[in-house]
Amino acid sequence: MSELSQTIARDTAQKKSATDSRENYPLHLAIPTRFNDYDLLGHVNNALYNRYFEIIVLELVKRSGIDWIKDNVVPFAAEVLVQFKKPLPLVDHIDAALRVGRLGRSSVTYEIALFTPTSEDASANGHFVHVFVDRTSEQPVPMPQSVRDVFERYQYTGETS
Amino acid sequence: MSELSQTIARDTAQKKSATDSRENYPLHLAIPTRFNDYDLLGHVNNALYNRYFEIIVLELVKRSGIDWIKDNVVPFAAEVLVQFKKPLPLVDHIDAALRVGRLGRSSVTYEIALFTPTSEDASANGHFVHVFVDRTSEQPVPMPQSVRDVFERYQYTGETS
Amino acid sequence: MSELSQTIARDTAQKKSATDSRENYPLHLAIPTRFNDYDLLGHVNNALYNRYFEIIVLELVKRSGIDWIKDNVVPFAAEVLVQFKKPLPLVDHIDAALRVGRLGRSSVTYEIALFTPTSEDASANGHFVHVFVDRTSEQPVPMPQSVRDVFERYQYTGETS
Amino acid sequence: MSELSQTIARDTAQKKSATDSRENYPLHLAIPTRFNDYDLLGHVNNALYNRYFEIIVLELVKRSGIDWIKDNVVPFAAEVLVQFKKPLPLVDHIDAALRVGRLGRSSVTYEIALFTPTSEDASANGHFVHVFVDRTSEQPVPMPQSVRDVFERYQYTGETS
Repeated sequence: MSELSQTIARDTAQKKSATDSRENYPLHLAIPTRFNDYDLLGHVNNALYNRYFEIIVLELVKRSGIDWIKDNVVPFAAEVLVQFKKPLPLVDHIDAALRVGRLGRSSVTYEIALFTPTSEDASANGHFVHVFVDRTSEQPVPMPQSVRDVFERYQYTGETS
Repeated sequence: MSELSQTIARDTAQKKSATDSRENYPLHLAIPTRFNDYDLLGHVNNALYNRYFEIIVLELVKRSGIDWIKDNVVPFAAEVLVQFKKPLPLVDHIDAALRVGRLGRSSVTYEIALFTPTSEDASANGHFVHVFVDRTSEQPVPMPQSVRDVFERYQYTGETS
Repeated sequence: MSELSQTIARDTAQKKSATDSRENYPLHLAIPTRFNDYDLLGHVNNALYNRYFEIIVLELVKRSGIDWIKDNVVPFAAEVLVQFKKPLPLVDHIDAALRVGRLGRSSVTYEIALFTPTSEDASANGHFVHVFVDRTSEQPVPMPQSVRDVFERYQYTGETS
Repeated sequence: MSELSQTIARDTAQKKSATDSRENYPLHLAIPTRFNDYDLLGHVNNALYNRYFEIIVLELVKRSGIDWIKDNVVPFAAEVLVQFKKPLPLVDHIDAALRVGRLGRSSVTYEIALFTPTSEDASANGHFVHVFVDRTSEQPVPMPQSVRDVFERYQYTGETS
């Protein structure tokens, strides 16, 4: 685990210095908080960060034209990582931001950040990996080209700021 | 990100073959599922995995004697990683398992696995990192020795199977 | 609405004095609380009372032999009422209690109470109404006799204390 | 309980014919649904109706100027009733509607309806009762006049349609 942790730390440090401001994310979504998102410590509960990640991932999935009910090829969650930078305080909504990172043959990594409305520094960073599977066999298959085309539009291609 | 992904994949493969069965975790907790833990795809919703992670982490925190309300030094969530191996189907409860991994001066990594009641293969693996902070300054400080003593009892020390 | 409120108040007052202690409920279930059931006021969030109601209702549904997936006649939620008596504080579990109240041709009213582990006074009372419908037409139909037989065993038939 | 049920049924029938369309509610709020609001039956889970009720109640509470943290007089949930008319299907958001019903010395009843975006018929109706209490003694006290003034603006005063 320690090698992995070091790699995460190094990788994250590099990314953060270069590309972690709002303009480095092509997709933005304001997510209204709910009263019970907060726990008795007065902050957004840690498991809700994953809920917010899911909400913005599903926004992109919707834009990609995927139909969860009818399609034969659907994305399954493979991995989610959240790095908590600072507690999310009582706010009306969270600004979620997403860019498509690694785009493989059958998998896609979404890089995600959460911001409070008034801050330029992310309160949390992380990623979420989808693997496309055949609905029946549940084995990985190539993602549809039409979906890939949409994902490519949400990759970050700008110069580092 | 691709280096990271490869590292995760390699690291996970190594770990799994060696130390990922139930007996490699000193702490076990049966977590009753709730009807709404399941989403309309018929599986436990991905964000609930983090809820289950939190539940078993808080069980260890309770055993460590930490008092969230009164203590001056309290643990903050720093990072959570979930790797989804197979969907969690309709079951009465999930078997969560935890061992203390890396134990730093002010941080601790819990390694966690989720099992269905009848399976020896984990449905999900991952880790959760706590950093101990001073409640007022919110800066990292060494964890109390009494807490560390408890954490050490939940490290996995056996030979790999 | 005022007539209704008065009726609720009168009806509740009568019930409470007579039959609101633990022994007046044939079905009991300890429901482990989750950290995020509590909101930032330090009490169980009001919408979670309905979650606990659902959990004990589903326990009875399971005992009645209903199969949500296969049966042609399934119960739909028709009404839920919660009366909050006192806040639920930080406890490991809630004691839920249920008895079958009115048992109609196609509907059943479950009367429910929630207790803290150490209290004989309910922290909340209320009811939950299920109506049995044909899965296809979604129109009310008589409940199966086998289900009714189980429900009758959970009616409160004792003398008032 | 049967008297109560009859009263609810009669009272509801009267109300519905007269005042249950969207224009009979002064406060409207679009509530984005979340993926996990839906359960494996494909509908919004019943306990989420109470979550939506809470969200629109808290919107009015915010407009009334109540400060949960600082005020000495705060509202406690006393009762919530939900009547489920038809399942809430997969939609982007729910239209919640609220009017202030009975306005007592220390209590207020909010009458609430939930609509799908394209429907004029409520999918659910109900009410939520707040009682104002002294924060320390937790005993009922009169609600502040400034709060009452706001509540009066959200009463339904029009002719029945």
